[in-house]
Amino acid sequence: MRIFNFSAGPAVLPTTVLEQVRDELLDWRGRGMGIMEMSHRGKDFSGVIAEAEADLRELMGIPANYKVLFLQGGATQQFAQIPMNLLAGRSADYIVTGAWSKKAYKEAQPFGAVRLAGSTEADAFTRLPRADELKLDPQAAYLHICTNETIHGVEMFDVPEAPAGVPLVADMSSHILSRPMDVSRYGLIYAGAQKNIGPAGLVIVIVREDLLGKASAITPGVMNYAVMAEHGSMLNTPPTFGIYLAGLIFKDLKAQGGLAAVEQSNIAKASKLYDAIAASGGFYRNPVELSARSRMNVPFTLANPALDADFLAEAAELRLSGLKGHKSVGGMRASIYNAMSLEGVDALVALMQDFAARKG
Amino acid sequence: MRIFNFSAGPAVLPTTVLEQVRDELLDWRGRGMGIMEMSHRGKDFSGVIAEAEADLRELMGIPANYKVLFLQGGATQQFAQIPMNLLAGRSADYIVTGAWSKKAYKEAQPFGAVRLAGSTEADAFTRLPRADELKLDPQAAYLHICTNETIHGVEMFDVPEAPAGVPLVADMSSHILSRPMDVSRYGLIYAGAQKNIGPAGLVIVIVREDLLGKASAITPGVMNYAVMAEHGSMLNTPPTFGIYLAGLIFKDLKAQGGLAAVEQSNIAKASKLYDAIAASGGFYRNPVELSARSRMNVPFTLANPALDADFLAEAAELRLSGLKGHKSVGGMRASIYNAMSLEGVDALVALMQDFAARKG
Repeated sequence: MRIFNFSAGPAVLPTTVLEQVRDELLDWRGRGMGIMEMSHRGKDFSGVIAEAEADLRELMGIPANYKVLFLQGGATQQFAQIPMNLLAGRSADYIVTGAWSKKAYKEAQPFGAVRLAGSTEADAFTRLPRADELKLDPQAAYLHICTNETIHGVEMFDVPEAPAGVPLVADMSSHILSRPMDVSRYGLIYAGAQKNIGPAGLVIVIVREDLLGKASAITPGVMNYAVMAEHGSMLNTPPTFGIYLAGLIFKDLKAQGGLAAVEQSNIAKASKLYDAIAASGGFYRNPVELSARSRMNVPFTLANPALDADFLAEAAELRLSGLKGHKSVGGMRASIYNAMSLEGVDALVALMQDFAARKG
Repeated sequence: MRIFNFSAGPAVLPTTVLEQVRDELLDWRGRGMGIMEMSHRGKDFSGVIAEAEADLRELMGIPANYKVLFLQGGATQQFAQIPMNLLAGRSADYIVTGAWSKKAYKEAQPFGAVRLAGSTEADAFTRLPRADELKLDPQAAYLHICTNETIHGVEMFDVPEAPAGVPLVADMSSHILSRPMDVSRYGLIYAGAQKNIGPAGLVIVIVREDLLGKASAITPGVMNYAVMAEHGSMLNTPPTFGIYLAGLIFKDLKAQGGLAAVEQSNIAKASKLYDAIAASGGFYRNPVELSARSRMNVPFTLANPALDADFLAEAAELRLSGLKGHKSVGGMRASIYNAMSLEGVDALVALMQDFAARKG
């Protein structure tokens, strides 16, 4: 029996997709072998990766002048790879709105000049910076943001305006594919797969073509966007199984009606949860400003932290898992990615209401 | 029905292991979720990675003063990562014995001084260099070798003696776990998973502790062996599914009796194939010197290349796949990794004999 898995990532994957993966694990389409066992240079896998890219382009409306790369090393490796590829001896701006953009800012520093263009750390990352708080360099090589902070539960619905000619670079790891995004506003989008895309070990980079070819001389081939674009993400063996699984997820999202439909479902799920917090009369609390509350990661604390362990124990009884909050924030966190069902959110809300009624 | 898959990698995986993966894909040990969906920080996955490491240590007899790292980016990323971590402003020696060590030599060059200590390219990589042909630098930061060349089918059974104090660094991607190896002879061993270990997207590094901590300042955290060792390979989310599958492969090899037993099976398989080539009276030919013939990758050409397409077509009829040779070598290549059965080799040998009798 499947559990309701609220883990922040690796995270729940759609049951129907996993059933398909299971059914073809030893024999994909009668080939007598699974996808994992196939040469990445063969016709079959070439079709799989091409279809995954085409479906992602369709889902996100990726313009033709953007390359889609299937890479390894997670978003954390991108924290270094982005300055290696884009800095080109210049300076870059970073806006810090939570733990992940702070890491990106720190990891970029060995590669050149990196400026802090804004930060909400003084407010414990409970809000987003206002436009008038940002100090943006009009000469920056790029402006880096994290559009959804997995740990602090802060999501950007209005993306900061970069100075003219400064490409916006966005870490979308924990909310990519959760709603339509205007890709043309970005120079580069990246996302680790292990939330809304597929299994850990795959990272997707969507990069505007004019940003290619600026990599520093010590950028290894597999980390050089231009080289990987030229080789169709296959300078070496790519993470074939992850790409295959991502492709199935993309098809599943298309079948659901695309990202506009997915967004409606995500709004419904997040609203139920935030409403339950608001209606609890302070028993539960989410510290994030209303306009910046993430639809994917909902951290909340209990007014009485001595009840945390009881809450988690009761959740486990009800087969609700992965709810313990990140240690830097405490309390609970419900990650409600695309693959979390409304049924799972309803079960959590029911527990929250019942628990508060008994212990409040 | 499963095929006999002679692909060079990604390659055949053991059917029984894949059956287990399939059976627990949606629900691992009653947890209500698959391994892919679990937090890498949780107790369950921590157990999986710890057990995988312990089993690998036992299988290979890895001494206590070596770290085992589960990384991403493939062996190709290691071509850059090794000099970034070990060069420390010095020079390194490379012995080039085939396409892969040649790539490793080339990819290392942007990171510092790299010397060609020996090469058999003039002989089309059909042999290994003799000790008296090597020009080894006694001050080198390391000596790099590739102990099995996947494309050229050249395997080192006697490993070159590095000068005193110079650590030997070996790419063992395509024959790791095929037989016992004396790990203590090496400073660092690395191997992409997609041959004898598991799915593509995982690379294993086994590194002696005294070599840690010399990384250049521009080494990203996820690429820094010391940092990754300190974080148990989990500075960021590791490729959890690949590590889990590798762990199952390790258990399977232990159940077979460990690497000494695996070696006997591999000797039996390779002998049958090389004997069939030798007995063909020149119809089939392997160009590699007897003492350096790989037990994992057996390239062979037909005396009449006009028959190549017929051979491949007949092989396909018999459900023998992945036999087309690498374009740089031509002809055929049978990769007979651990998971290739003796039955598969027998089927190939039968075809070779029958085909030669009819067309010879």
